[in-house]
Parts: sequence; structure tokens; C-alpha cells
Amino acid sequence: MAGTEPCFDVAHLGHVELFTDKPEASLAFFVNVLGLTESGRDGGSVYLRGFDDYEFHTLKLTSAGRTGVGHVGYRCASPQALERRVKAIEALGCGIGWTEGDLGHGPAYRFRDPDDHVFEVYYETKRYVAPEAEKPALKNIAQRYHGRGVCVRRLDHVNMLAARVEPVRDFLPAALGSRVTEQIVLDDGTLAGCWFTVNNKSYDIAYTVDHTGRHGRFHHVTYAVDQREDVLRAADIFLENGIHIETGPHKHAIQGTFFLYVYEPAGNRVEVANAGARLVLAPDWEPVTWTETDRKKGQAWGLRTIESFHTHGTPV
Amino acid sequence: MAGTEPCFDVAHLGHVELFTDKPEASLAFFVNVLGLTESGRDGGSVYLRGFDDYEFHTLKLTSAGRTGVGHVGYRCASPQALERRVKAIEALGCGIGWTEGDLGHGPAYRFRDPDDHVFEVYYETKRYVAPEAEKPALKNIAQRYHGRGVCVRRLDHVNMLAARVEPVRDFLPAALGSRVTEQIVLDDGTLAGCWFTVNNKSYDIAYTVDHTGRHGRFHHVTYAVDQREDVLRAADIFLENGIHIETGPHKHAIQGTFFLYVYEPAGNRVEVANAGARLVLAPDWEPVTWTETDRKKGQAWGLRTIESFHTHGTPV
Amino acid sequence: MAGTEPCFDVAHLGHVELFTDKPEASLAFFVNVLGLTESGRDGGSVYLRGFDDYEFHTLKLTSAGRTGVGHVGYRCASPQALERRVKAIEALGCGIGWTEGDLGHGPAYRFRDPDDHVFEVYYETKRYVAPEAEKPALKNIAQRYHGRGVCVRRLDHVNMLAARVEPVRDFLPAALGSRVTEQIVLDDGTLAGCWFTVNNKSYDIAYTVDHTGRHGRFHHVTYAVDQREDVLRAADIFLENGIHIETGPHKHAIQGTFFLYVYEPAGNRVEVANAGARLVLAPDWEPVTWTETDRKKGQAWGLRTIESFHTHGTPV
Amino acid sequence: MAGTEPCFDVAHLGHVELFTDKPEASLAFFVNVLGLTESGRDGGSVYLRGFDDYEFHTLKLTSAGRTGVGHVGYRCASPQALERRVKAIEALGCGIGWTEGDLGHGPAYRFRDPDDHVFEVYYETKRYVAPEAEKPALKNIAQRYHGRGVCVRRLDHVNMLAARVEPVRDFLPAALGSRVTEQIVLDDGTLAGCWFTVNNKSYDIAYTVDHTGRHGRFHHVTYAVDQREDVLRAADIFLENGIHIETGPHKHAIQGTFFLYVYEPAGNRVEVANAGARLVLAPDWEPVTWTETDRKKGQAWGLRTIESFHTHGTPV
Repeated sequence: MAGTEPCFDVAHLGHVELFTDKPEASLAFFVNVLGLTESGRDGGSVYLRGFDDYEFHTLKLTSAGRTGVGHVGYRCASPQALERRVKAIEALGCGIGWTEGDLGHGPAYRFRDPDDHVFEVYYETKRYVAPEAEKPALKNIAQRYHGRGVCVRRLDHVNMLAARVEPVRDFLPAALGSRVTEQIVLDDGTLAGCWFTVNNKSYDIAYTVDHTGRHGRFHHVTYAVDQREDVLRAADIFLENGIHIETGPHKHAIQGTFFLYVYEPAGNRVEVANAGARLVLAPDWEPVTWTETDRKKGQAWGLRTIESFHTHGTPV
Repeated sequence: MAGTEPCFDVAHLGHVELFTDKPEASLAFFVNVLGLTESGRDGGSVYLRGFDDYEFHTLKLTSAGRTGVGHVGYRCASPQALERRVKAIEALGCGIGWTEGDLGHGPAYRFRDPDDHVFEVYYETKRYVAPEAEKPALKNIAQRYHGRGVCVRRLDHVNMLAARVEPVRDFLPAALGSRVTEQIVLDDGTLAGCWFTVNNKSYDIAYTVDHTGRHGRFHHVTYAVDQREDVLRAADIFLENGIHIETGPHKHAIQGTFFLYVYEPAGNRVEVANAGARLVLAPDWEPVTWTETDRKKGQAWGLRTIESFHTHGTPV
Repeated sequence: MAGTEPCFDVAHLGHVELFTDKPEASLAFFVNVLGLTESGRDGGSVYLRGFDDYEFHTLKLTSAGRTGVGHVGYRCASPQALERRVKAIEALGCGIGWTEGDLGHGPAYRFRDPDDHVFEVYYETKRYVAPEAEKPALKNIAQRYHGRGVCVRRLDHVNMLAARVEPVRDFLPAALGSRVTEQIVLDDGTLAGCWFTVNNKSYDIAYTVDHTGRHGRFHHVTYAVDQREDVLRAADIFLENGIHIETGPHKHAIQGTFFLYVYEPAGNRVEVANAGARLVLAPDWEPVTWTETDRKKGQAWGLRTIESFHTHGTPV
Repeated sequence: MAGTEPCFDVAHLGHVELFTDKPEASLAFFVNVLGLTESGRDGGSVYLRGFDDYEFHTLKLTSAGRTGVGHVGYRCASPQALERRVKAIEALGCGIGWTEGDLGHGPAYRFRDPDDHVFEVYYETKRYVAPEAEKPALKNIAQRYHGRGVCVRRLDHVNMLAARVEPVRDFLPAALGSRVTEQIVLDDGTLAGCWFTVNNKSYDIAYTVDHTGRHGRFHHVTYAVDQREDVLRAADIFLENGIHIETGPHKHAIQGTFFLYVYEPAGNRVEVANAGARLVLAPDWEPVTWTETDRKKGQAWGLRTIESFHTHGTPV
């Protein structure tokens, strides 16, 4: 049956909007330390991207009286795919409606996930066009490798907190055509974490349980670098710039990601990561399930997961 | 129109069959030096795979009186997608017909590309199940990281030679739904090389001009490692094992791949490569075109392309 | 005055003898997992070395009813330098006397440090001569890069435990001409750790306080790899081989060493490390002193030092 | 006999003075692209150093109507050692006399090598003291890891050209106590290149034949980075900044150095390099001799040495 075929309507995670109550310090972090480049600004928002992000922005940093996530945008594979997704989302009863888009993209359809985070899907986008000073020496990257700060390559994924993850496991496949690639199932059957992807990356979004029971909170946003050495170098850059390093560098057992977590000045958690050559190519990939026993072994090489990783989310 | 939507019928490059006239030496190279693991053998063929290849095999090494490529297999995203591809291929008039598959997969439909290389598409596959001694410590990789030789992670891509590349540029999108991501167009308009992908990898197959004008020849097969350091380490391993290093390590201007090329004992070219975090996520990616002027700059960091790279193919 | 000139009588740390009560398992670890190569054996000892150690051995693994360190050997810069050191050591009243040497080196003068560890100084040595199968492709390394296991390059340093470190800080400069490069001084003035070198490496031996108050115990032996990536790769190799990883990879605040600690099967701690391009070139280097306040920041990137690091020594 | 003992009078290569006829462009390269930091300036000279160089400067960049090397300074191990070296140099009949030093160090004794390059030996030095904004997070490095440009760690070595290398092979051991670690001897017995060290680095100066027969010319100065990945990253930084990359990254057969050569704007050759964990620890190291046959194999992994490497020197 056609209904059981994999869905490819959504092409990739497009951008995330982060709220900050320390806009200047946050911006300085993202530009000078993480190495994003500003594309433009409007209202209280600054549009930022990694040097090889092809769209106008992958991070919309919005000055607000709070921290946490504003919304998450996914780009669809075609106008028709966008239509299909809107129809599917509306059928799920969680639609908010259309927006006109912003500096970075065209019309977007907004909706809520079961934990009250705001998402949007869109197709029309504004491609980043490098100004003369940012033109790359090699024409197949979006912007020159400028070498500023950590100089991350591209947006990789986001991690949400949710009071309950189970509803999300059903929701994202229905709304976005996401596949579950890995998950944590506790001994009592509770789903403690779930990793999803819409494409060949092994995940573009993860949800983990918010032990405070609150809704709509944010765990972290991740930018990818090309090599694990870039993650190690990032650690020195964060250290020298007085950025709080929460944990890492180390390798996650789940997904095998080589990670480093810091808090940007307003408190939102940011990860720099490298996945090596790992991709999920199998169209019929079976979710990998991690048990409590598995998790007791710590991260891949035995690091105990730091307590704040289970408790710190934004808003705090 | 639905017809202009991207096609996702083919999930990924599945395997390549290489011919060797030095089967023992070739096998020793692939197992002990490159670090593939044998899954099984039948007739004159040995089935091999990288430690994180999920299928039974990604390389079928077949003893023959010659070198070069036997066939290339692509796995479809679903049974329905396979049906659609067979229909499309038959319509192109290049179909050969169904085979029963082999040790590694189920029924496959074979066809020829315009330069007379043999391909097949299939859906049913045999997943690699690690025997006790090869079980990984982390359950999300297919086999333990055994550390033998270069210990490549997974099949990455193949490169074919063709008397003319233009017909292939039309053919692969029609047959497999491939997209062109990069290409070399000479000053006289000739297409000297073309890179294609069916998924988010920036390429899974490339075609470059065979200056001898022959048909059906093979340029190289590539296995991916996680880090550029693995490529550098591979160079020392090849050196110490008396394997002919043709060129590298260096970074390709095209696709930005960090590469190292060697000849396996029978003469087939093998590449070890790392792409960093580079992916083609844009559903409407515009092909990047390299001109003769671009190519005169050499590889990314200025290395002159070695002459044999333009002349050596198998069979010789 | 000549007396205040730096002393260069001792060229480098030569070897360490480790005791094991699980000789077969320990040997399998050192050869197959860490990647040392056997040079020979006599009595209950196996002589081992890293691929670029120039002497016959840097590790003498001796079967005994216990774990811990047998002795540590330093090679002098010349026969005259050896004579001078013996005279100085005898004057310190801690001499044991001459031995005839062993398979790896000529006559050695043995002595005890203030905490009862046995040392020896020697000049005549047996150089490793690679058998045909181990000859390197490049003639400036001692043995081919064989790629087995972690494939460590060379002995780097040892770390002793001592009931009190203060006497050692006076002793090693007098006995070996060592310089103190870094140290930990607690708020009450206690010397909690001290790092020494006889050459341009930033340390070849360290002493840290044994909180059990016992004497003559051993903390770890370290082998150097060329790149931090080799340390990360080692972590996967240890993981897949069931070797207990105690802590790391991470970067020490002290000395900046990128480290990974494991226990070999008998329980002796072994480190794989990389120091980058760091050397102590200044002839008048001033010791760097770390305070309790400094230490509360954890390792370089904030990792809390694992409790066992302060308690586990051999014999246990 | 004491006379045959190794000499340790000279502690390390201290600095090199380079002439430039494009002072602004050269300075911009060294500061913004290579990542050196300015310590001060006087007359037409700017004093520069890598982030972990402990002295006031390791590069004195002097505006002149020409390119090439001004002088090379070596720091002695003690005042007494300096006296001994001056006596030895005077006995060789090549002394120039004392200078008062400059911003970076105290009195220095100048002399000429047999090819007419100017050297100096000194003991009193000015240590770099980091201003507040440059203080490192970890107190055992000289300056914070600022991450600007290539951000090299420390001066590594210099390479001189000489009409004849043989006289230098005799001279440096006599003048500085240098040891020969590697050399190229042609089939006709000519010494084509020679690598020397005064300490445990495998070389701090090299001499190669100047095929033009001229005297006093300069081949390159090298700064060390911690990892090979830093060299690869440097290649992208040079590429994006329009710096001419001559050759590399690749691994030298001789000394095993992982190298990358560029020309700074005035034309002086600059290398970024990593030696891994390689050190010359043996006090009785036997020089490694490379023959013409050896050299025909190219660099370590087969790269042909680029022609300009044999012809380009400064002044041009």
C-alpha cells in the first residue's frame, strides 16, 4: 500500500528561533564565539547562519523578556509537499495557521506539537547570497570559511523538552513524516527520549522528558562542525571566552554524536557536535531502543551524564 | 505539478561488484588493509562490508579474468518505489531484466547506463547480523569498531568512466531520480564530469570522461571514514603495506571531499574519503558548475591533479 | 657558578617494569589492544615497546603475585654522565648498587626514592632492530606503523604515588637533575602533586599523594600517540575490547595533556595521551603552581576528576 | 673523555629576523592569518610571537628594501653556557661581536655561518607577560588561545639555503653543540640537506643546497601547531585569505613532519607544521641518511616535491 511508504515531504530542519533576555551578550556569543554570521535584522530579531548554511538564516535570535524557543521551522521538499503537510497537520487538529514568513522565507504554516512548542513548515526560502567580502574561494560552499570563533558549518538539530514524550512519538511522523531512529524506554515503559529525522541525518530533532512537568521548554540547539578536532578546539575557545561549559567533549552512546554543551549568555544550551560519517540510509531503519540498564553505562566512553543535563532547560 | 517534485524512490547506493584477476591479493587488501569484513561467499565471489554498513554486503569481490566493475546496485525506498523505478527504466529502453538476487539481497532489476555499465535496483535486502565476536559495544552501529587496517565505516560512492558524460546526465535522473549536484563543463561545452545523488549525501556516483573513448570502465569505489585524521592514518597504513598510493591526502575542490586514492593489488582504484559535515539538504539544490579556468587552480589547496587520475581506469 | 647550571646528565625516561598477577591477560592487552610489540622474554618477564621506541623495550611486564611497579629506568646522556649520577645518588645515601642489566640494557645502578620506589640509571642500551617484517617504509622510525590496536608511538611518562611528595621534590633534582615544571600546593602548604622532567618534554614523571599513606605504589604509565584523534580512536578500541575506561578523553588543566585512562586486566592504570606541540624549552622555566582554588575548576574543560583517580593505585 | 659528551649549552632556537619589502602586508599576514601576536615595535621592526612562545618574540619582522633573513638567535642554557659558546665560536674565527640586544633580549654575541647567514647567541631574555586581555584561562600557557587565524603555538624551526652544506655540518656542532639528526647524501657524495638540533626536537634548523650558488639565502621559517587537523584547517584559512599555497598539506619523508608551505606577501616562505609525538630522545642518535634513491619516492605518501621548493628562496 502506498500509505506505508516512507514520506519525504519535509526536506530538512530549516531554522530555530531562540528567545534571549540578554540580546547583546547572546548576539556577541553567536557571532564572535560560535562563529555565526549575521544576514540581517528586523524588529527585535537578528538572523544568523553557519558558514555553509544555504538559507538566509538558521537561527533567529529574538530579544524577549525570556529565554527558550520561539519556533522551529522545517522546509518542505516542494510546494506540493508543503500542501500535503498542511493538510495532514490540519487533520491532526493542531494547526495555528499561515504567516507571511519573515526576512528569511516565504509563507509558513504554523502549528503546535503536543507539548505546546510552535513549529512551522514552509517551502519558499531566501537563499544566502554572500557579499563580496564573504565569497568563498570554492564555489560549492555558501560562504567563505571565515575562521571566526568555532566557525560552525551548519545547523544540525534541536532538542526539545516535553512533559511526556509518547504523544510526540506519534505526532511528528504524522505531521512531518519524521522517522524515529533511536529512543530511550524506561523499565516501566515510559518513553524518556526520542530521536527523529526527516532525511538521512540520523536525527534533526530530539525530545527528552522534562522532569519539571512543564510544557514548551527547550533543551538545546546544535551546530555541526566538520571534525571532532573542531569540537576539541571549540572547548578551548569557549574556555578562553568565559563561556560556561556544561559537559563534554565526549561521545554520546545514543546516536554516537561527539558533543560539547555550553550555555550561551542568556542561558540557552548550545551544542557543538560532529557525527562523523554516520547517516541513516536504510529506508526501513528499525528504531534503536536504549534501556535503563544501557543508560547506566553512561555515555559511550563511560562519562556519567551531568545532573544539570536532566534539569536545565529554558526558560529556567 | 506532481511531476516536477523531487523523486525519493531510490534510498541509497547499495553495493558494487568489482572484478579482480588477483582474487587472493585483492581479498587480503580489502580485509586486512582497508578493513572490510567478510559476510560470506558463493561461486567466485566474496561479500564484504564496512563496519557500519547495515546490509550483508556493499562490495562483492568477484574473481574473473579481468578487473573493473561488475555491476552497481541501488536500494529502493519501498516495494512500490522499486516498481515505479522498473517501470521508468523499462520506458527508457535500457532494461535487462530481473535476477533472483544473490546472498546479499532479493530480486533485482538490471539495466544498462548509456555507457554500458550494468546497474540493478532492488528493495528486499539481507541485513547484516553481527556474530557474537563482532557485536558492537553500542547497539546503534552494525558491527563493532574492530580497528583492523583502515577500518572504513561505510560505502560512500562509486565513480564510473564514460566515453560521453552528457547522456548519463539525462539518464540517471530519469532512471533513479538522481539529482546533479556538481559538474565540470569545458569551454567547448563538453561535460567532463558529473556528480549525482539520490539522497542527502552530496554524491553517490560520479561520471568522468574516459579519454580512451572506451565504454563501461571503472574509475574508483570509495569508502567513508569518520574523520580526516582517519584518512591521514590510512596513508601510513597503505604505505607500510606496500599499497600503491596514487594521490592524496588532499581536498577536492569539487565536493570538498578529503581524499586518498590507492590501487588495490589487481589495479582497481579505491578511495578513502571524508566529507566532514557536508550534506545536500536543499531540495532545490542548483548544480555547481566548474569551468576549465576553475580546474586550472588544481585541487582545493592547489595540488595538481596527477596525470594517471585522468588515464587509469579498469579494465586497463 | 657551574653548580647552578642546568644538569643534562640524564637523557630520558627509559623503561618501567610493571608487575602483573594476570600475566596472560595483561600481555594480551599490551600487545593486541594498546599495540606494543614484544622484543623478547626471559624468566617471567616480557619486553615490550611502542612502534617508535628506539630501545629494546620501554615496558618490562613481569609476572608476579602482585601488581604495581617493579622499577623505573632512566638512560644517561653518556658514560661520564652515568658516573656523575651514581656519585650524586650515592651521596644521597639511597643507593642499592649495580645490576648487570637485562635483555634490554647494560649495567644499571639501582636506588630508592624517598617513598621506596626502585629506580635505576644506565647508559649502555640495546637498540631495537626491526626484523624484516617490521621494517618501516620510512627509515627514521624504529618500526613500521603496524596499526595494531591503539598503536602507541612511545613511552611518555610514569606517575608514582607517594605518602609525601615534598621529599621527592628535593630528591629527583638531586638524583637525576630533574626540573619541577608544575605542582599542586594545597592551602595548608602540602605538596599534593609534582611534575618533573629531565629534558624538553614537559614531564617524564609525576608524583601525587597516596591518601592511604602507603609507600611505593604506582599510579599509571603513559604512552604517547601522535594526535588527539588517536586518543579518541583509542577510546573506541578500549570500549570494544571490554577494557575498563576510568576517565577521559579530556584535557588536563595541569600540563595540558589530552588524556584517557584505563585499567589493564591486572588493574594497573594505563594512560594514552597527546601533548600537542607543547615542550618545555626554557632553560629557566619557573614551576607553575596550582592551588586548591584552581583545582576546584576541574580539568581543563570542566570535567570533575573521578574519585577513583585519587584512590586507585597498584598494588590495590 | 669529557670532550665526547653531548653538549647542552644551547637551550633552543630563540627567534628569527625576517626582512620584508612589504611591511604592512607582511604584518597583516603574520598577525591576522598566521595568528601571531605583536609584543612591541622599534625602528622598522615589529616583534611577534605564537600564543605559547614564552619569550617576548620569536619573529622580528623588519622593514627593509629586501626579503630574506636578518639573523637567527639561539638562547643558551645559562650565562656560563653562553660564555663557553662565545669562546668556541671565537675559536672558529667567525665571530662578529657583541650587540646590546633589542626589545626582546639582552646582550647577544653575533657570528656568521660558513654561508654568510648571521646568527647570535644570548642568555638574558625578556619573558612575555600577557596583558589582562590576553591572559590564558590555564596558567601554564604563555597567552590565551585566541583562535585568530591559524593560531600557531610556537616557533619550530628555520631552514637556510647554502651554496654548500658540508661546511655547515661541521660548523653548527662546533658552534652551537648541534647534533645532525637527518641528512640527504647524493650518489656523488654531496650533502644536499642536513637537519640539526640542539635539544629533543628532532630539528630546529635545516640547511639545503642553494642551486643558484648564492650565499646567505633563506628557505623558510616554521611555526608549530598542536594537531595535523590544525594544518588542514590552516590550508582553508590560507585559501580564503588569498595566500599562495606552495605545497601541502602532506607528510615529509624526512623527519616525518606534516607540512604546509605558503609565501607571505613579501615572498618569504612560511611553514605550518606538526611533528606528532616525535622527539629525538636518544643521546647517541645516529644520523639518518637519505639517498637519491630514497628521494625518488617523493614525500612520505608519494607526493612529488614541487619544483619551486628547490628554487625559491629569499631574497629572490
